[in-house]
Amino acid sequence: MADELRPLRDQIDEIDQQLVDLLAQRLERVAEVGRVKERLGLPIYVPGREAELIAKRRQEAQARGLSPDCIEDVLRRVIRESYASEHDAGFKCLRPDLGSVVLVGGYGRLGQLFAGLFKRSGYEVKILGEDDWAEAKAIVSDAGLVIITVPIRVTEAVIAQLPPLPPDCVLADVTSIKTQPIQAMLTAHPGPVVGLHPMFGPDVPSLAKQLVAYCYGRQPEACRWLVEQMSIWGARAHEVPAAKHDEQMALIQALRHFTSFAYGVHLSEENPDLKLLMALSSPIYRLELMMVGRLFAQDPELYADIILSSPRNTEMIQRFAERLIKVLTLLENEDRQGFVQAFESVRTWFGEYAERFLAESRTMLSKANDAQV
Amino acid sequence: MADELRPLRDQIDEIDQQLVDLLAQRLERVAEVGRVKERLGLPIYVPGREAELIAKRRQEAQARGLSPDCIEDVLRRVIRESYASEHDAGFKCLRPDLGSVVLVGGYGRLGQLFAGLFKRSGYEVKILGEDDWAEAKAIVSDAGLVIITVPIRVTEAVIAQLPPLPPDCVLADVTSIKTQPIQAMLTAHPGPVVGLHPMFGPDVPSLAKQLVAYCYGRQPEACRWLVEQMSIWGARAHEVPAAKHDEQMALIQALRHFTSFAYGVHLSEENPDLKLLMALSSPIYRLELMMVGRLFAQDPELYADIILSSPRNTEMIQRFAERLIKVLTLLENEDRQGFVQAFESVRTWFGEYAERFLAESRTMLSKANDAQV
Repeated sequence: MADELRPLRDQIDEIDQQLVDLLAQRLERVAEVGRVKERLGLPIYVPGREAELIAKRRQEAQARGLSPDCIEDVLRRVIRESYASEHDAGFKCLRPDLGSVVLVGGYGRLGQLFAGLFKRSGYEVKILGEDDWAEAKAIVSDAGLVIITVPIRVTEAVIAQLPPLPPDCVLADVTSIKTQPIQAMLTAHPGPVVGLHPMFGPDVPSLAKQLVAYCYGRQPEACRWLVEQMSIWGARAHEVPAAKHDEQMALIQALRHFTSFAYGVHLSEENPDLKLLMALSSPIYRLELMMVGRLFAQDPELYADIILSSPRNTEMIQRFAERLIKVLTLLENEDRQGFVQAFESVRTWFGEYAERFLAESRTMLSKANDAQV
Repeated sequence: MADELRPLRDQIDEIDQQLVDLLAQRLERVAEVGRVKERLGLPIYVPGREAELIAKRRQEAQARGLSPDCIEDVLRRVIRESYASEHDAGFKCLRPDLGSVVLVGGYGRLGQLFAGLFKRSGYEVKILGEDDWAEAKAIVSDAGLVIITVPIRVTEAVIAQLPPLPPDCVLADVTSIKTQPIQAMLTAHPGPVVGLHPMFGPDVPSLAKQLVAYCYGRQPEACRWLVEQMSIWGARAHEVPAAKHDEQMALIQALRHFTSFAYGVHLSEENPDLKLLMALSSPIYRLELMMVGRLFAQDPELYADIILSSPRNTEMIQRFAERLIKVLTLLENEDRQGFVQAFESVRTWFGEYAERFLAESRTMLSKANDAQV
């Protein structure tokens, strides 16, 4: 066997070595782009450029008998690496005259992420940690931006305890609910206020394409530079009114975390053989198991904070439980027709999104299967 | 701006063109490998070869300052394309003397996938469709393998209606439950019987790395070639007793589909602005929304079949609903301590898997974010 395949495999190995070399060269060029962008203050993620570059390569691939989806997937993966490398190069400082950036609770993981980004953009960064409150007044005395990065459950208390800030100082927070923290900030500080919700964990390789939802509290024009600075870091910033934000987050966060939590409790009490379960998992179930299991590797307090942040969350989860019980009755009555009817009406609600999600998930599931060994 | 960046971007474009060329060359070599493998009857997916090839490139990448994970992801994506191309080349026929392969219900999508694979492996394939039962006896008269590929709810009835098969003929099915279909096949046919559960949809690009669970019913030695033939197609075959299989599938399929269904019903009745929900989605929530939404682009009868296939499924889902209500009480009582305690005990149950899922999901979420535009 090996005799006939060996020369072909040697050729493939050689091609793969050239591939490593080519990607390394690409990264070197990208690092240069990063330095130019830093100097000129250009954002690291430019949707138009990425789309154009990919469209051209898709055409060429087609002409060469290579699947356009394949070259697109490869390029997107390589481009992620490029953003991380541009990220290390540093960023333009939009407000060199700002004064200091004070991160309250800045020793936490998210605080450290932002501290790094501000420093790499040439800002002077100060941390106001738990043990620094005696010097709080001195620390904020020259602040141009104060960001609250403490856990949700103490956010309002910490805001209330802030010393007076310079009048032009921007006050911001990064908690995953917005109505109450913004209210607290407006009360504590008569100057510019903006609420941020970075929708990613502290372990992202760069901010490229990451979403930051934001809600202006007061003097939007004085806060705008901060949104622009985040765009330079690569983030996609999305403005949304605080109340609307919190409504969506009840679904996006509270219900999601709660159902994962309940599923985990169920699994642990059913007590299946997790190893066998994994061995028999299709990519889609493995993905689900992963999404549930990952919750339990994290901090329970954080999830309690998010779910318990508002009585409205509990009310919404109660409605979910009622509907679940209602559709369970269909199974108990072996009501196949009722099941199909309910199904059709949800399909109508999803509209064109159902097909779109099916197509997108197919791509994701193929990627999940690639990593299967 | 463009002036300073243009020469660098031109260089990157040139590198990307070389990349397209290199990947096209690789695919040509791989097609040759496919032809050799077809002749020699070698499987298209060889875990050892893939692992070795990736390990070498990871080392080289490290030495060149390129992230090893990046080259691994790129290669795995390209290798998926290679499997699809080997798949088109055709496969060794392990039983040229078999007689015909009869696919009962073979006009369905999964039936067509298998029909294609058997044909590309040199077998004579016959279809026994809904309208062909008058000639059923003639169709199966020289069959060496009969596979039932009809929907679950009619599987047992269709098996009972089969004419007598040649004594050495292998009888198999592909339904996603195993106990009852295997029992029905054992009753209908005194020869070799094997139950298969292909854990993938009919739209996979190839069988490489795809999982097929299988349970022998009778005369395993006479069925083994079929498992080996699927390995040549690239599948990972996993033997499991029928009862154990069905137990796991209650969790992997019935509960999963049911919770997605309930979540869909809930969403449609809460009636949020789906566009805003998408705009505010982190990759992890988008993934969840996708997994729920994709269900509703598919056939409700199929899901009714799977969920209603056994009263045990309903019982298990009832236990899930009870536990969900129980943990909901923690929220209603704002019992943070109870929440944290329950969380910790699930964490203990997941053991080392929790951390592992967190790491794996991080990789998946980065991939999901790559495609963000």
